[in-house]
Amino acid sequence: MANLATDRWSRRDLLGLEGLTADEILAVLDTADEYFPFATGVEPAPQTLQGRTVLNLILEDSTRTRTSFTLAAERLGGRVIQFHADTSSMAHKRETLLDTARNLEAMGLDAIVIRHAERGTPHRVAEAVACPVVSAGDDAHEHPTQALSDLLALRHHVGRLDGLTVAISGDVRHSRVARSNLYGLTALGSRVVFVGPDLFLQGLDDITVEAETATDFDAVLPECDAIMMLRVQFERHEGVDLDLADYRRRYQLTAERLARAKADAPVLHPGPVNRGTELADEVTDGPRSLILHQVTCGVAVRMAALALCIAAAERA
Amino acid sequence: MANLATDRWSRRDLLGLEGLTADEILAVLDTADEYFPFATGVEPAPQTLQGRTVLNLILEDSTRTRTSFTLAAERLGGRVIQFHADTSSMAHKRETLLDTARNLEAMGLDAIVIRHAERGTPHRVAEAVACPVVSAGDDAHEHPTQALSDLLALRHHVGRLDGLTVAISGDVRHSRVARSNLYGLTALGSRVVFVGPDLFLQGLDDITVEAETATDFDAVLPECDAIMMLRVQFERHEGVDLDLADYRRRYQLTAERLARAKADAPVLHPGPVNRGTELADEVTDGPRSLILHQVTCGVAVRMAALALCIAAAERA
Amino acid sequence: MANLATDRWSRRDLLGLEGLTADEILAVLDTADEYFPFATGVEPAPQTLQGRTVLNLILEDSTRTRTSFTLAAERLGGRVIQFHADTSSMAHKRETLLDTARNLEAMGLDAIVIRHAERGTPHRVAEAVACPVVSAGDDAHEHPTQALSDLLALRHHVGRLDGLTVAISGDVRHSRVARSNLYGLTALGSRVVFVGPDLFLQGLDDITVEAETATDFDAVLPECDAIMMLRVQFERHEGVDLDLADYRRRYQLTAERLARAKADAPVLHPGPVNRGTELADEVTDGPRSLILHQVTCGVAVRMAALALCIAAAERA
Repeated sequence: MANLATDRWSRRDLLGLEGLTADEILAVLDTADEYFPFATGVEPAPQTLQGRTVLNLILEDSTRTRTSFTLAAERLGGRVIQFHADTSSMAHKRETLLDTARNLEAMGLDAIVIRHAERGTPHRVAEAVACPVVSAGDDAHEHPTQALSDLLALRHHVGRLDGLTVAISGDVRHSRVARSNLYGLTALGSRVVFVGPDLFLQGLDDITVEAETATDFDAVLPECDAIMMLRVQFERHEGVDLDLADYRRRYQLTAERLARAKADAPVLHPGPVNRGTELADEVTDGPRSLILHQVTCGVAVRMAALALCIAAAERA
Repeated sequence: MANLATDRWSRRDLLGLEGLTADEILAVLDTADEYFPFATGVEPAPQTLQGRTVLNLILEDSTRTRTSFTLAAERLGGRVIQFHADTSSMAHKRETLLDTARNLEAMGLDAIVIRHAERGTPHRVAEAVACPVVSAGDDAHEHPTQALSDLLALRHHVGRLDGLTVAISGDVRHSRVARSNLYGLTALGSRVVFVGPDLFLQGLDDITVEAETATDFDAVLPECDAIMMLRVQFERHEGVDLDLADYRRRYQLTAERLARAKADAPVLHPGPVNRGTELADEVTDGPRSLILHQVTCGVAVRMAALALCIAAAERA
Repeated sequence: MANLATDRWSRRDLLGLEGLTADEILAVLDTADEYFPFATGVEPAPQTLQGRTVLNLILEDSTRTRTSFTLAAERLGGRVIQFHADTSSMAHKRETLLDTARNLEAMGLDAIVIRHAERGTPHRVAEAVACPVVSAGDDAHEHPTQALSDLLALRHHVGRLDGLTVAISGDVRHSRVARSNLYGLTALGSRVVFVGPDLFLQGLDDITVEAETATDFDAVLPECDAIMMLRVQFERHEGVDLDLADYRRRYQLTAERLARAKADAPVLHPGPVNRGTELADEVTDGPRSLILHQVTCGVAVRMAALALCIAAAERA
């Protein structure tokens, strides 16, 4: 059986990494490590969520995150209800999201996983319901379980999460993953440098911790213990004037560029990758890529997040 | 274990409340009460539907009804197959609905739950297949499990379902819930008054029991033991000339208006609520609102409907 | 417990019937017969896929195939992840299908079921992942589990699959089912005649075994031990100049036309049927139609395909 760090986690919700203490973050990661052997389903997992119902209230396109939460809950014995926005009362019947959440809760929910295009929606849902709420991403604000997956994969590779210098390079402006990783790594005592063209380093005023930035990727790389690459979010680029050829030349992580970083510094990417844009295939598919390992870590992290929040709600 | 009223229910299908006897309706409600403690999943439910497969053939937008049937079947141990109209053979391959139903039945179904925009479709499907069919709503015709949920919630609050006067107020014209509640309450010996502007009291010629109507909500309220509010179905209002400001003034249920009804007369609404249209927020969220309780009752009622129809089909 | 022909099947993937030996085809059919009593869920099936996760990567409209694979996997105790193309990263985030497959595999998959509009995609996915891949149809290329369902239904009726003459009549040009049945029946020692207007007998150059063709349905029928009718695939007919009235007159299988075939020669159709186009209702719903039995066989065949491929992958 897994040994859960329930004594180190007392929050009902996981809405972001902003404001979490180092020990809270480590409590989730340590619990995720307990679940890791069961993440891919090869070994039968402890049935921590037996009899529990989790609602996937995913209101923005998502395959991997929806599937990851689904597998996490189901492998722990839980039941998952999939909410599809396009077939919902909300679309045609003018119901508010909060009423939808309250109504579905009245059918018996033990947790709500929510992704929404509007910043702060997970927080508003959490105020409206009694059950735990776990954010699966809101706008360019936070995506806590993705950052925790990245941190777990990084810890597996490097062995620690303090005292590191981590470059987070690319479309920082539109990235909730960048923000959540910044909050997490800062809390754990590591240094983050956001890297990208000026265009991608704007619009960061919402961030509440000090964020170091740099436009010269090549200059930053020699200090880096790890490099997190971000997806260029073309679908959010209306009105953004990106010179793609120039971006590739200065920021695409190639094997040649990667050679400037510390030996063995791993490469992370939250996925999905734009092949040939932010990452050269030789790096995406190369030996220092943690990308697929991050995905496996994601299932373990979501198992931990659901188990810990539900346990905390029960004790409250 | 739940004590099911299988000896009082012998129908293979539940297509509407029209024509059901009082004892048949009470058989479903009594069975739903047996299941009620298990409706929200906190207690493990009797596995009445173990090894059973239920098809959710939902061909009109629905979140709460789809989810309610899904949870009802799964909590009783059943498996649910979700049919999504937009990814179906029907859309692109010209297959008839009856052929789709027959084909899916050949894969092994124990019940079909159907919602369809066309009146009478559940009846046609029921004629085409051998397994039980439970209607989840057809056009403005019937929505039997919703009405049974309303009746169960009402009985929990008032203690009985005979000798009551119940106002059903709002967009009666487009409401299958109004019709099903009228059939149910009439069979049980209660009096229903449909309330609304003339515009909403037209088009009721299809109803086969006497339907009392009134346009003056304030005049009716003092006689009411319960008030069921209906959603204004804007999505069906093409060509309907509703003066919304006037509607709100005369029919919106506010705390002030509610004070005219009998003391403790509860307020019901099948959901989703148009906040600020038919219901003031102070009533929606107030102490006399049964809205969320109706939702919980819905799961118990659907457990009962599926269990009773499948048991009856087996005996036949 | 079912007695699986695992010693006669050593392939990790089932991508088509082209190139399979007679014994490999019979190994799947014999295993399907072992599972047949459990196909409709009346009897609890052996839990062959307990703890296994199957991904339904269905990227072309499908109801029956998706549902059939789902029920097959779930009745054997497996878990099924539904991938909906329209809510995917692929649609909006430019991820390649192979990356999506690899990513989902990193969450722990035991098999991928794939349907795709592009010929050869199942083969490309199979090269990209480590787990078994079962094709659920690619373009007009192959649909192996449908053909195996047809063969199983045919064997149930006729008692053998060698030495038969089988007409496959209709829109051969656009039919992956016709091709897979041709490969299967030829390998088993039966004779296939493709029947249809010239228009539907074009574009068969991709086929790698000898394909006999005929335009005169009435002349072929007296030799036929079985007739497989194909759906006219109107949705693929852009630029195809079909005279529908003439097609009905010369190729629609009516009771009168069926009387020309050998006594008791059964009629098959992979579904969905265009009623009144390729098949008269009297035949679709008549005593010689195997259509619904093919559907039931489909669940058993998919149980066998998943079980055999997963077992082979494990031994490898």
